[in-house]
Parts: sequence; structure tokens; C-alpha cells
Amino acid sequence: MQATIITIGDEILIGQIVDSNSAFIAQELNTIGINVKQIFSIADNALAIKESITQAKKDTDIIILTGGLGPTKDDITKKTLCNYFNDTMLFYPEIEKHVKAIFKKYDLKYIAINKHQAEVPSKATVLFNEYGTAPGMWFDQEEKTIISLPGVPFEMKHLIREKVLAKLQEKYQRSHIAHQTILTYGKGESELAQDIAGWEDALPKFIKLAYLPSYGKVRLRLSGLHENKETLEKAIQTATDELIPLIEANFIGFEDDSLIQQLKKSLNKNKATVSTAESFTGGKLAGELTSISGSSSYFVGSIVSYATRIKEDVLQVPKDLIEKHSVVSKEVAEAMALGAQKIMQSDYAIATTGNAGPTKGDADAELGTVVIAIAHPNGVFSEIYNYGQPRDKVVKRAINQAIYLLLKKINKNEENMFASFK
Amino acid sequence: MQATIITIGDEILIGQIVDSNSAFIAQELNTIGINVKQIFSIADNALAIKESITQAKKDTDIIILTGGLGPTKDDITKKTLCNYFNDTMLFYPEIEKHVKAIFKKYDLKYIAINKHQAEVPSKATVLFNEYGTAPGMWFDQEEKTIISLPGVPFEMKHLIREKVLAKLQEKYQRSHIAHQTILTYGKGESELAQDIAGWEDALPKFIKLAYLPSYGKVRLRLSGLHENKETLEKAIQTATDELIPLIEANFIGFEDDSLIQQLKKSLNKNKATVSTAESFTGGKLAGELTSISGSSSYFVGSIVSYATRIKEDVLQVPKDLIEKHSVVSKEVAEAMALGAQKIMQSDYAIATTGNAGPTKGDADAELGTVVIAIAHPNGVFSEIYNYGQPRDKVVKRAINQAIYLLLKKINKNEENMFASFK
Repeated sequence: MQATIITIGDEILIGQIVDSNSAFIAQELNTIGINVKQIFSIADNALAIKESITQAKKDTDIIILTGGLGPTKDDITKKTLCNYFNDTMLFYPEIEKHVKAIFKKYDLKYIAINKHQAEVPSKATVLFNEYGTAPGMWFDQEEKTIISLPGVPFEMKHLIREKVLAKLQEKYQRSHIAHQTILTYGKGESELAQDIAGWEDALPKFIKLAYLPSYGKVRLRLSGLHENKETLEKAIQTATDELIPLIEANFIGFEDDSLIQQLKKSLNKNKATVSTAESFTGGKLAGELTSISGSSSYFVGSIVSYATRIKEDVLQVPKDLIEKHSVVSKEVAEAMALGAQKIMQSDYAIATTGNAGPTKGDADAELGTVVIAIAHPNGVFSEIYNYGQPRDKVVKRAINQAIYLLLKKINKNEENMFASFK
Repeated sequence: MQATIITIGDEILIGQIVDSNSAFIAQELNTIGINVKQIFSIADNALAIKESITQAKKDTDIIILTGGLGPTKDDITKKTLCNYFNDTMLFYPEIEKHVKAIFKKYDLKYIAINKHQAEVPSKATVLFNEYGTAPGMWFDQEEKTIISLPGVPFEMKHLIREKVLAKLQEKYQRSHIAHQTILTYGKGESELAQDIAGWEDALPKFIKLAYLPSYGKVRLRLSGLHENKETLEKAIQTATDELIPLIEANFIGFEDDSLIQQLKKSLNKNKATVSTAESFTGGKLAGELTSISGSSSYFVGSIVSYATRIKEDVLQVPKDLIEKHSVVSKEVAEAMALGAQKIMQSDYAIATTGNAGPTKGDADAELGTVVIAIAHPNGVFSEIYNYGQPRDKVVKRAINQAIYLLLKKINKNEENMFASFK
């Protein structure tokens, strides 16, 4: 069973926003065995909308459109669909009531053009949008289905999860799709590929392997498509079991077991806590450490010492240490980590200092220079890296590396570094 | 002049990664007057690659492909293009030399399969990739151009900026494209639309208006396409000048003048500094405040008090205040802001506390409840909001609102709130 996702909006085509809706929809469709063949991003333009639906109908059965359902004049998806299906609009009083209630809740003025939000082409099944004013629409064309959803991410997500998936499962018989992602850290993709070449060549034809490198991580993704669910799951499991020993030294975990999830497991297992002292990462390391639910079980807090004087006044880094070694140095990073550990009374503390660019800061260190220090119950250590440019890459790479260093430190007494996750 | 962007990679179609490359390419093409008609995301599959190029050639002259140029077996773009153009591979010793140097720099092992990175179809012009091992490729087919770039964002960006744009400008005569984006905050899109309906109807035919709402912001985007550059720029300027007085109370600034840029201007103008004390935002507000270059001119630092005891121990929020009012209260938020202001010795301080969800924390406040406090040179104030769910939306909305509240406070003595930006 194949689907096309069509995102409608000039803002995507001029690069003003990044289309993150399609990734969400693709993930959700995959969970019920529907494969996304292609994603089209097109303009707020009636001809483009009609042509892309016609094109999508050639190859795929399910077409999901997002965007262009707002109340303003640039939003033309509903009108275009009405026209495409030779249909007329029907007014739904219960939708208008709901729209008015939303306006009241957010203290916004309900005005004439909002009334149009309660109109839906008569051939469509309404997908009632609890979180927003634009209803979703479901059109059946024999075996084909065309679905139109608002582009606002949390409204779209609500409709996919609460309405669309169940209706699709009801309408279609589907093949089975399965993915398994194995996260590695610290080795390049070509070297990994060499390590596992024999295993890769022996994979069954219905399983594909992909290498997904990202800031020091490489994800190995196995994807399979098969009529028989049991055969598929068994083959993926066997392939995984055979793979792990080949990549042991770099194995971190599975799909949802990202670096940060693994850190959570390790800290929780040891009933340990962590805090951060951040310079160039500016709070983003703390942001990453608190990005998963349950983070309050291990994360205590952070001191972002952006100005040099905060390193001295709050983190208690001696002034002469900074003068002697500069703010981008192992000595200062280690003092920051010990300062955070002491102030936050955490078992571990991570400190970051560096020159992320694009211009040099208070220090003379080369652009891209990064120092990461880890304070632990028995002391402190630090590492220096150069992650080049641009700024954004330096910050992301350093955050991953900081989490990895801490994880390695916590787990180093295990028989195998990541033995606890197997 | 119209372009198609084609991103190649199963990881996009299963939703494992979000395609942010296309937005970058679209922006850059726009700056040289090339309009992106459509974006296709397709599988790592030879047939899909060939079909999408054929489809794109129908409507557009310039086709830019990204992805699938790595050294591993799942990367098939180069081989597919070689086949599509009935071509053979040519080995470039200078590319191999460069690839070896990169492996040496990052301390990676150079192995046999990396040699293929130095092969390029003979009909292609090589776009030398200084930052990576996969060369870009440029194919001329009379008036059409097919360009293949690596999918790694900073490599792709380098090739677009340093090689592709100049070559496209050399090859094609182009119409002129111009955009103007006006940022508003605090009013819904339908009410804004009503306020400016007369102005919108009077816009010249070659100018389009779009409304782009996002977490309390609404961007109004004017886009124009015209043969004559002067006519176009004048029309956009006139439209903008007429628009501003109609939306005065909600006007924040222009394209690059996001909320945070405006805050930077206001703080710099007043030679003032800011710090933050963060609970549920977990460092992400500090991350936002340090996301633009030059942020060290106004941002001092942050205390992320994720654990309640850090609110007491570090931020000096009285224990009985927390017991009496709970951590999610105006009283605690204000004490946090004053604590940060004092410790960081900043002129202003922003504090956040709330229940972002998905489960309740230390407080009994309803999910989605957010308190933002602003400490300023003459005192402190706070506001309570409920931003509903999900968690991610609550955090983003609160960060925007916090920056907005501070901006309003700093500028309130101006004749008009945002008078300084006009």
C-alpha cells in the first residue's frame, strides 16, 4: 500500500519554513504498514494542487495533503478540492460553534471570514479538528483516498493520530513494514561499512540497509517489507542479532534509544544526577538533557556562564586561571565542571567552553575549538576537539560528544562499555 | 526561471529525518531570481530518481538533486545519473588526494570503497567539495541543467554558495523575485486579515500576500515576480509603507528582524543586559537568546533550576514561598527573576516556571500552565498563561511570549512601543 504526501504552501518553496509535517506523517503511516512513495511540496496555486493530485493518483492509493486551510485569501486548498471534485460547499453549524468557542478561549475576535471555516465540500467526510478551526476532509474515490489536513503541526498530528490512521486501517489491507535502527557513535560510515560488509551482503532481499551519519553518530537502518509479519520480524531480529557483535565497540542502542535515552538509563541505574556549566553552548546542552520526558529524575540544573565574569562570580573559576590559560582551556573547563558539580550538588557535571564562531570571542583559540570537561564523583577530566565551522555544527557536535563522554565515564566499569543496554 | 529540488533518501520517506536542505536551496535560488516550482522527496531507488528527473524536466529548467552520494551501498545517485546520461565514470586523482587528506584530518581509516568517491561521470563538470568526500556534479542538457549535491547540510551549503549560484547566474537570464516579510505579534491571522482587507485587495497583481502564523507570531509575507527590478522593488516598498500604519500595535519588524533581533537592538540601544532563570524551559530560553551572533553584547548567563532545590539553594527563592504558593506561581516566578538578576548582575532577568506536560511535576497547576516573570531595574512583574498541550508547543510559545514581554517592558517609554525600529 503506497501513499503520497503533498504539502501546500509558498513558504516551503521560498524556504521560509522547513516542512516537518511530512516526516511525522510518514512515520505514522509506516506504523500501520503504509509506505510513503514520494513527498511533493507545491505552491498555493490551484493548478499545481490539481496536477499534483492527478500525478500522485497514478502511482499511489492514498494522498495526504497538508496546508492551505486557513481563513485568509492565500488559503485555497478547500476551494480547489471542491472544484476538483465538482462539488459544492455544505455549512456545518456544529463546526461554527466549535470555531467560536476556540476564539473565545484564546480571547480573539470572531469575525465574518471565520464563518467559512465551517464550510466543507459535500462529498467529504469531516475529520473534526478539536484543536483548531480548520476541519480535516476525507474524500473517497473508489479505491483511492484523498485526505486534506491543516498545516498547523499540532492540529495535523491530532487528526492523523485520532482520525486518519484508524480510518485507513479500516479501508485497506496492507503489507507489513518494519524498521530497526541501530545507533553507533565514534566511527565513520565507510569504516563501519567495511566492518560489516559480509553481513550486509548476506541480508535477505526484502531487507534494505541504510547508513545515516549525523554529528558523530551513524545510524544503521534496516527496513523490510513482506506479506508475512512473522517472517519479516524474525528476519529483522536475526539480522540485528548478527550485526551487534560486529560493531560492539561503537554500539549505543536502538531506534528510540538515542544517546540521551541511554544517558538517562545509565544515570537512573546508578541513581546519579547531572548538571551543566555552559559557555558557547548557551543552555542548549541543558535543553538537550531536558528534551525527553522523565528528565527531572537525573537532571538538576545548569549555570550558563556566557559572560566571563559569571565563570568567576558564580562558578567560582579563579580569575588567575582564566588569565593564565584563557577561557578556552582544559583548566578552565575543568574548574567550571567542578563549580557546577559543587553548586548544583550533582554526582556528575558537564562543562563546555569553546570558540564556536563565526568570530572569535574572549579567547584566542582557533575557530571551532571546543573543550568538554566531565566532573565525576572521583575527580574531573577534559578533552579538546576542533569541529571546524559553521557555528551550528560545532554546537551540535559538541553536545553529542559531551553526552557520549559522560556516558562512557559512567559505564566504564561495566564489562563492556554499553553492556547494560543489551 | 523555474527550478525543481529533488531530495533523495529513504530516511525522509520513513520520517526519520526532516528535509531542511530544500529550504536552504530555495532561499538561495530566490536571491538570484530563480523560483522553486516544486520539491520532490523520493526513495534511494534508480527508477524513482530517473522518473522524477524526467517529470521535473517537463516544467522546469534547473533540477537540483541532493543526497545519495556517500560511499556505501545504499548511495546510488551517482551510478544512476551515469546510467541516465549513458555515460561512463572518470577517475580524478586530485579528488582522491583530497579525500585522503580529509580522512587523515579526522583520524579515520582510508579504505578501498572510499576510492569510488573520486569517480565522476565524464559528462559532468565537477563541483569540487572542499568540506567533504563527495564531489558535486553539474550536467548541461542544452537549456536544462541537472545538478547533484551531497546531502550533508554543510557540504551542500558550501557547494550552493561557492559554486552553483555563480554558474547559474552565468548560464541563465532571470526575472526578478522579491520578498518582504513583516513580523507581527499578539493578534490572530483572521483579525489581522480583516484589519488590512482593503489594502490587500488593492495590491498589484504581481504581488502575493501570505499569512504565516507560528506560536503567537504572524508573519505577513509579500512576494513579487516581475521583469523590471525597479518596478518590483518600488511596488513592494509602497505596499509595505502603506501596511505598517494599519498594523502598528502589533508590528515587530522585518524579515531578519525576528523577535530576538529586536530584543538585541533594544537592549543594545539601552546598553542593558539580560539573564534568565529557567524551570520548565530547561535552558532553551537561554539557547534562543544566544542563537544569534553578537549575543554576548547583551546576554550574561542563566541559571536552569530544574530541581526545586536549585530554586532555593542557588536562586535564593524562600522555601516557605514555594510551600505556600507552589513552584508554579507568580510569587515563585518573580523571586526566581529577582534571584537571577541579583546573581548575574544583569539589568533585566526573565524567569519561567510551569507545567509543560505531558505529566504533572512538583506542582498541582493544570497542564500547560506557564508563569513568566520579568525583573527590571525598578521592580518585577509576572503573567500567567495556559498554552494547552503538547509540551513542545507550550515551551516554544512561552519562549516567544517571554521575549515579547521583555521587549514591551524595555520599549514602553517610547512614543510607540516599537517606534525605535521604524
